[in-house]
Amino acid sequence: MSAAIKNLDSRLPKAFSLPDFLATRTAAVNGALDRFLPTATAKPATIHRAMRYSLFAGGKRIRPALCLAAAAACGGDETAALPLACAVECVHTYSLVHDDLPAMDDDDYRRGKLTNHKVFGEGIAVLAGDALLTQAFEIAARSQGWPRYSHQTIILELARAAGSLQLIAGQVADLEGEGKRISARQLRYIHERKTSALLCCCVRLGGMSANCTPAQLKALSDFGYNVGLAFQVIDDILDVTQTSEQLGKTAGKDTQAQKATYPSILGLERSRKIAGQLTQRAFNSLKGFRGKAVALEALAEFLLRRDR
Amino acid sequence: MSAAIKNLDSRLPKAFSLPDFLATRTAAVNGALDRFLPTATAKPATIHRAMRYSLFAGGKRIRPALCLAAAAACGGDETAALPLACAVECVHTYSLVHDDLPAMDDDDYRRGKLTNHKVFGEGIAVLAGDALLTQAFEIAARSQGWPRYSHQTIILELARAAGSLQLIAGQVADLEGEGKRISARQLRYIHERKTSALLCCCVRLGGMSANCTPAQLKALSDFGYNVGLAFQVIDDILDVTQTSEQLGKTAGKDTQAQKATYPSILGLERSRKIAGQLTQRAFNSLKGFRGKAVALEALAEFLLRRDR
Repeated sequence: MSAAIKNLDSRLPKAFSLPDFLATRTAAVNGALDRFLPTATAKPATIHRAMRYSLFAGGKRIRPALCLAAAAACGGDETAALPLACAVECVHTYSLVHDDLPAMDDDDYRRGKLTNHKVFGEGIAVLAGDALLTQAFEIAARSQGWPRYSHQTIILELARAAGSLQLIAGQVADLEGEGKRISARQLRYIHERKTSALLCCCVRLGGMSANCTPAQLKALSDFGYNVGLAFQVIDDILDVTQTSEQLGKTAGKDTQAQKATYPSILGLERSRKIAGQLTQRAFNSLKGFRGKAVALEALAEFLLRRDR
Repeated sequence: MSAAIKNLDSRLPKAFSLPDFLATRTAAVNGALDRFLPTATAKPATIHRAMRYSLFAGGKRIRPALCLAAAAACGGDETAALPLACAVECVHTYSLVHDDLPAMDDDDYRRGKLTNHKVFGEGIAVLAGDALLTQAFEIAARSQGWPRYSHQTIILELARAAGSLQLIAGQVADLEGEGKRISARQLRYIHERKTSALLCCCVRLGGMSANCTPAQLKALSDFGYNVGLAFQVIDDILDVTQTSEQLGKTAGKDTQAQKATYPSILGLERSRKIAGQLTQRAFNSLKGFRGKAVALEALAEFLLRRDR
């Protein structure tokens, strides 16, 4: 995997290909996750099969890619960022496993496959989510330390992004907002926490692994924040415009759960415009990287144009 | 709280009183947890109320007490161990909240109060457990570092004890063992992971916070391992000998769930004997501390004799 990364010029040549970038980084991340996690036969096998089932269910590895791209933008070695990229992916996957539970969003399909609890039962799904969250901290702790950013800083960054004031706050507000009329401002509060916090954490950790300057960290935070909001607006749009088959998960869930979304509050056209504006803001925050942030730019563009 | 701890001679005078030790340390831990956690009104209030509901439900704070007692045994400042003591209590509480869920043990009462999901609903209970687990790592990261034991070492220690090969492995094996005939050896496998792993982690972290020697760390591990096993044997015994009122949780759950326990496999008398032997082994491992481990000894004795 390190080889796969090293074969790509880390200074990101002009002939940058996002499909190549995503393919090589996904392979590197999958390889690293496979090594970091206990094997599928490690006792008790059920929990390790359940963890791996959701972790290797065909996720697009957007968050790890953002983390590695941020490291590259700051002139860092992506291999050093790899454990942090894997840690955020474990946090993301745990949040999906728990979010899909009957007590939460009650979803049967995710990425075109049965959700964790549909395959392993609710008890194991709760524990598999718990184990992935715990694994994230173990992997993050196994990263090397950096001059400006110690393990303490790295763990605090991850814990805060995943904690009760950010990621979990978003889940709670989302759960409590069902069936209620909420304002565009309240919706932004949910999106900031449910999605932006972890995307922001991804690029910040990537920057930290490259021992970035405080100014670079600030720029990455702005980028992550705006890309995160754009990402969620697009998610809301896709939920109403795409079919379940196209999405690999149940479409129309938001409408069904009477969840307020950007399209339901502001309409489709205005929502699309907002997503574009947020992505533009994300681009603007990358100016200081002078062309080194080509992978981050391409990812932001890709997330805006995606159809699933 | 530091004051409360400092008022006690950290060299542990001969006139050691366990009730005094437990009362002062519980107060110190409660105060620290209150400061470490977001307030009950922090937005979204539901999650913070739910986290605090279970964290301040009257737990005996045995794990934090063990952590602080281990720090004292190694000549350390208990105040330095306090964040680690709080971190393990957050891990313990999260595991109880998830363990009580309908998909797991399905318990309505814990410590004489309604369980988290009975008060806040299943969705919030899942998230409150998640948030407490995440909080544990944030608190552990906020501890100071030590010459022999870095934040990296501390976080790895906690993540491994709480992870899919230890604490969660125990929960899974417990869940899968219901209604099956299992051997005493398999039962020990469950107990080692479900209980010993975290108790062992408590005293090891306490020792680390006192910058203990490798020999002291080994002695503390042996102590934690044996006290943990004894603790679980006693738990099994109390489940069949005490009433729900005495326990503050549903008694006879093990029999009802057709769970194998020490009494069901080996009988009550033999189980009591084993608990005594394990406690004796725990005592033996403390010899090298030459009287400084009086609080650890008193705690092991207390855990053996407890009636709830």
